[in-house]
Amino acid sequence: MQNTSIITIGDELLIGQVIDTNSAWMARELNACGIRVKRRVAVGDVKDDICKALDEELQHADVVLMTGGLGPTADDITKPLLCEYFGGKMVVDQGSLENVQYLFEKIYHRPITERNLRQAEVPDVCKVLVNKRGSAPGMVFEKNGKLVISMPGVPHEMQGMMTTDVIPLLQSRFSSNHIIHRTLVTFGIGESMLADHIQELENSLPQGIRLAYLPNYGMVRLRLTGSGASLPQITAEVEEQFFRLKSAVQQWLITDKDETIEQVIAGLCKERSASVSTAESCTGGYISHLLTAMPGSSSFYNGGVISYSNSLKQELLGVKESSLIAHGAVSEEVVREMLQGILNRARTTFGLAVSGIMGPNGGTPEKPVGTAWVAVGNNEKQLVQKFQFRFDRQRNIHMTSVNALNLLRQFIVQLDK
Amino acid sequence: MQNTSIITIGDELLIGQVIDTNSAWMARELNACGIRVKRRVAVGDVKDDICKALDEELQHADVVLMTGGLGPTADDITKPLLCEYFGGKMVVDQGSLENVQYLFEKIYHRPITERNLRQAEVPDVCKVLVNKRGSAPGMVFEKNGKLVISMPGVPHEMQGMMTTDVIPLLQSRFSSNHIIHRTLVTFGIGESMLADHIQELENSLPQGIRLAYLPNYGMVRLRLTGSGASLPQITAEVEEQFFRLKSAVQQWLITDKDETIEQVIAGLCKERSASVSTAESCTGGYISHLLTAMPGSSSFYNGGVISYSNSLKQELLGVKESSLIAHGAVSEEVVREMLQGILNRARTTFGLAVSGIMGPNGGTPEKPVGTAWVAVGNNEKQLVQKFQFRFDRQRNIHMTSVNALNLLRQFIVQLDK
Repeated sequence: MQNTSIITIGDELLIGQVIDTNSAWMARELNACGIRVKRRVAVGDVKDDICKALDEELQHADVVLMTGGLGPTADDITKPLLCEYFGGKMVVDQGSLENVQYLFEKIYHRPITERNLRQAEVPDVCKVLVNKRGSAPGMVFEKNGKLVISMPGVPHEMQGMMTTDVIPLLQSRFSSNHIIHRTLVTFGIGESMLADHIQELENSLPQGIRLAYLPNYGMVRLRLTGSGASLPQITAEVEEQFFRLKSAVQQWLITDKDETIEQVIAGLCKERSASVSTAESCTGGYISHLLTAMPGSSSFYNGGVISYSNSLKQELLGVKESSLIAHGAVSEEVVREMLQGILNRARTTFGLAVSGIMGPNGGTPEKPVGTAWVAVGNNEKQLVQKFQFRFDRQRNIHMTSVNALNLLRQFIVQLDK
Repeated sequence: MQNTSIITIGDELLIGQVIDTNSAWMARELNACGIRVKRRVAVGDVKDDICKALDEELQHADVVLMTGGLGPTADDITKPLLCEYFGGKMVVDQGSLENVQYLFEKIYHRPITERNLRQAEVPDVCKVLVNKRGSAPGMVFEKNGKLVISMPGVPHEMQGMMTTDVIPLLQSRFSSNHIIHRTLVTFGIGESMLADHIQELENSLPQGIRLAYLPNYGMVRLRLTGSGASLPQITAEVEEQFFRLKSAVQQWLITDKDETIEQVIAGLCKERSASVSTAESCTGGYISHLLTAMPGSSSFYNGGVISYSNSLKQELLGVKESSLIAHGAVSEEVVREMLQGILNRARTTFGLAVSGIMGPNGGTPEKPVGTAWVAVGNNEKQLVQKFQFRFDRQRNIHMTSVNALNLLRQFIVQLDK
């Protein structure tokens, strides 16, 4: 089985100014077609460091994918370096030149600069991959039967090139082992309790099948991975073990797919032709962002209110001033009134309301930072729960949001019983 | 100057199920105290791969920081491996044992398991770092004058340990060169145009000062980095060049700090004791999430409406049915009415309204995917602009949001003129 290494290039990765999302995306796509990623390395815009990384990764892997260091500005040094490394000289690539000219004339409507034109220059020892989403071409080099593929670092340019060129090239070149993943998601049980609970099952997994625990914001994803030469055989084996795993964790299971809690909500609503609206205070739009980040969310999500100030809670949701005075904005009474308010205004099947204190300031001894009240329900029935988290602001917002969505999930599922 | 390598461990990093945010955080913190990160490597939960990575990174660097692979579950293999690598044997660490017992009894209120107790076992050849935010201890090993420090992979546990133990240890151990960064942000000019515009300045930078271009969602951050033994000297040199850079990019400059567009808005509002409300359709709460993710945002942000459906545009914002029929929800007329509606309801100094088509579906020849109308203003004056993006849904939402916030910034700044 072939091994792949990913090298990402850029000083910004090493001083932490940006988070490397490219390698995660690449790894996921490669893995999905049975191509194994063995290592990921990030180095700065330093010629010697890039060369050493190339040397080493060519030892570790059969394919080295590089991203970054190909933009038009002067901190980009990858292309001349690759030219030297593979012993070529720079020439103008006609396809890339036409692409750059097309982009600037027809799409960007901006004057083309010398710098941009230079992007069409490539080493004469590579196969060029035309960049359909930008001006920097990709390059495929070969050395001792191993492949080095250099791509731009702009995510959507790299993604386009991976999808249309790189993955098909790798698939046609290597007949790789099949890798099958099956993932389920649990909510409300810690990683070690879960591990104790399914220890026997884990120990009895057949060879070639592995279990991984992926904890994330109150959820633990359990992933079974099987690898083998025969696709039908490894699929059947993984399915059998996945069925055992599902039964073992039934009481905490929220989905037997690799999906998010908002995708679970979307699925439940679409099955029932139901709609949802939200009234958010402390989560400040994060719940609605999670819901609307999914394509097609308008089929079940109507929208809602971000009643961040008390006056908007009254004005838009009809929360009573007396309730705010008597109980405060973070209280069962107010969150119930917020829910009723959004159900009255949006007239959706289900509603969800949240009010809390996310920190770092604003806590009191009675209502410390991390307190969140959540109400979910419809016009007949409501479910209200208080949560207490102990994290920083960002994590408190995230935890409150996924727990609110999970409470809504519980409410919808219980209606059927 | 000492070099640091970061090794992150976990199969989930290599199949792309999670994005590695730990190394970016670590790199940023280390850099801020003058400790240079040379390489970042990610490997799977495979003993041989972890050992080889350790071998190699000890060649590249003086300090190797490791995260991950220390949790209570069976896919964690790092601790026994480190024990073997450094030739020790496993013993129970009393401090870590008391910490685990304390956490489960007083904080988690959960029964303690054998697995959790085993977390208190450490190699007898390391210095133990007690984990104040979780049960897995950190470990410091030394070999030929080089340091290997292993930390848990849970972000807030690693962050606590870095802050209280690891960074002070590294600082006391190595007298490092001082590194100074100064960053500004431009909006509305491409990377190559910008590079052409400031080419002379870049070429004339003194030795020891570098310029980097960091493009990100319609903005380009320009970062000057200086490095030197004398802190006052390198600070003064960087300041001088930063002043030149600022003057050169004045017309696109949105801030001379390393901050986001939402932080710029927060600053402008706080200076003026002004308030903001939002009416979002296509961005679905992402703008309000950006604003409320900042601590203290309630001092200028009142909240708003996510009028995802047409009926909520009418019900909550008073958009006229006739406007929706005549012009459609994605139109100048509707976005103007949304703005007026939120200003009427929220009574804030400024308002912002957005309506568009983010894709992948819903586009028409007249209003293709990526069309977004934005209106910003106050009760006296409005500024309306149409944008056309060409990306995927997620990126269209992000681009619409930052461009809407930038339009609001322009509006506020123009009021002073």
